[in-house]
Amino acid sequence: MLDPSAGYLTVINTYAVAPERAEALLELLIRATEETLRYVPGFVTANFHMNLDRTQVINYAQWRSGDALQAAAADPKVAALIRELAQVADSFTPLRYELRRSIPAAGA
Amino acid sequence: MLDPSAGYLTVINTYAVAPERAEALLELLIRATEETLRYVPGFVTANFHMNLDRTQVINYAQWRSGDALQAAAADPKVAALIRELAQVADSFTPLRYELRRSIPAAGA
Repeated sequence: MLDPSAGYLTVINTYAVAPERAEALLELLIRATEETLRYVPGFVTANFHMNLDRTQVINYAQWRSGDALQAAAADPKVAALIRELAQVADSFTPLRYELRRSIPAAGA
Repeated sequence: MLDPSAGYLTVINTYAVAPERAEALLELLIRATEETLRYVPGFVTANFHMNLDRTQVINYAQWRSGDALQAAAADPKVAALIRELAQVADSFTPLRYELRRSIPAAGA
């Protein structure tokens, strides 16, 4: 479960993509995360989703803090990788959020 | 943690809102979820986020399946509640996704 008390920064990255390139983009994002991003200090988790029309890949990611994300983005190697991934998509929108409340199903 | 093998449907509801009404909208969404939505069959979890500018509230929600969500939306009481909540925001966008892969930090 997601836990507001962890105090993580949530980043939702939305990649718009043509349906015929959606799977390739997803694979590229997974490979970049497994090979590089998961080793970056402050990275907590990445969660890759595909919409049902296959026109959007989104990453629901958690970072330890806003400062950790800023430090990562200031690393030229990380910045270059993020730019490269964004260019494979038709558009790229990163948005930052604070998780405020998680509510499970009654009885869960 | 989020688990792709659970097979849930992910729904990301984005509510655009004026900063001075963002906290009130968030409270309304939390109350509606605690009092009503969490008892609806097929509901798994709701996770409410606020962006740093306080112009967006998003709910990262999980439902047991697309069929469960459709059944819930066909319930007049649930449909009316969702419409009512959407009207408090300046705009409301619900998007459906499949969680394909979760990658934790190295060593986590």
